[in-house]
Amino acid sequence: MARFFMAGTNLLGGATAVIRGRDAEHIQVLRIRPGEDVTICDTEGKDYKCRLVRADKEEAELEVIEVVPCKGEPSIDVSVLCGLPKGDRVDYIIQKSVEAGAHDIVFFLSSRCIAKPDDPYKKLERWNRISEEAAKQSGRGMIPKVSWAEDYGEVLNAAVHTDLPLFMYETGEREALSEVIEANRNIRTAAVITGPEGGFEAFEADLARIAGLHVCSMGERILRCETAPVVALTALMYASGNLS
Amino acid sequence: MARFFMAGTNLLGGATAVIRGRDAEHIQVLRIRPGEDVTICDTEGKDYKCRLVRADKEEAELEVIEVVPCKGEPSIDVSVLCGLPKGDRVDYIIQKSVEAGAHDIVFFLSSRCIAKPDDPYKKLERWNRISEEAAKQSGRGMIPKVSWAEDYGEVLNAAVHTDLPLFMYETGEREALSEVIEANRNIRTAAVITGPEGGFEAFEADLARIAGLHVCSMGERILRCETAPVVALTALMYASGNLS
Repeated sequence: MARFFMAGTNLLGGATAVIRGRDAEHIQVLRIRPGEDVTICDTEGKDYKCRLVRADKEEAELEVIEVVPCKGEPSIDVSVLCGLPKGDRVDYIIQKSVEAGAHDIVFFLSSRCIAKPDDPYKKLERWNRISEEAAKQSGRGMIPKVSWAEDYGEVLNAAVHTDLPLFMYETGEREALSEVIEANRNIRTAAVITGPEGGFEAFEADLARIAGLHVCSMGERILRCETAPVVALTALMYASGNLS
Repeated sequence: MARFFMAGTNLLGGATAVIRGRDAEHIQVLRIRPGEDVTICDTEGKDYKCRLVRADKEEAELEVIEVVPCKGEPSIDVSVLCGLPKGDRVDYIIQKSVEAGAHDIVFFLSSRCIAKPDDPYKKLERWNRISEEAAKQSGRGMIPKVSWAEDYGEVLNAAVHTDLPLFMYETGEREALSEVIEANRNIRTAAVITGPEGGFEAFEADLARIAGLHVCSMGERILRCETAPVVALTALMYASGNLS
């Protein structure tokens, strides 16, 4: 069923919902006809099951049939924090992390980043649009926010304020990801930090360790920078009962 | 360290290895200098740590330093079987499945496939080259084979001959993936079947159920056809201790 987000939706069964702008156009593009059903999500975890009454390019009117909790939200909030990769790998990380259940996504510059955008804040609008599209398509109950962290200290600080801060690293002394997760079963929040194309410098891993993060290995296979967040997120979702 | 595959390598420490053709060119492209180390994998689970002696565009000569078991191979063999998606999603599934530890990858046509290649066998060379590149980069000990199955019965048959045949389905009566995996801990082989863009028809899921596969849910979030194999594979790798 087609799915739309409407921040601050607050409608009871039997009420009328009105969709305007880009989403109204999208209803036209999808050729949804009066009498057909769509879901409006309030971006705070509630789904409004609606039936289309009438639609034109500017506006769609819908009847609210039922209000139900959105099942697409995982029971844990996982922040994904990534050293900025090049080009479309960013888009890929956003799309797949949203599908896999990320709560929010943060990009930052680390020593080995090849991508050096002049103004990363300019990219945030596009990045958040990718998140919104992925959230719609995968049936999420909220739109994971994509943001930019100015500095590595800020990234570590955000991570250590979660119940389970994880730092993915490819060499040296590390804990096994599965053992760390098994030893921390009753968490509500977690953070996953992954590096750019060339990974992290040793001093970056040392700083993470000193800050109290678990420096983790995901096994002997080397994962690409755009694959690592999705694999780590999936391990967390699996272990917390959110893949069933 | 740069990594090359050499089928049928059989060299002892102290011996000389010779690399010719495309891989010799690749050594030039990577600007590897005499005295620097590279790994040659015999594609059967053994790694030959070698030191470059001399190289030109046609041929590279290396001294074998040490022969060690390749650590990049998971302890379980998982076959990934996918209803053929459109365009570069195929490339993506191959690359990410190899990184995530797939043993082999099979594509097939199911009812809702949009992609209808005239001759899928013509694509196999390219698909296997993507697998080889991903295996090199991720440090695998073998090159997962990519193949084409002519018929859906063949796909189900391949799956039921593994210890844990899984069929990923988005609606109706399903078992929770995590519960199925937890109930089958001591497996050596598994199969993961996923659908194309539009998913599977009900009759395809019914056939899978009749054939003895576990029809599984991966939660309430809808995964894209190119994301589902990687998520299922990661759940299996996590549960079997191959993500640590």
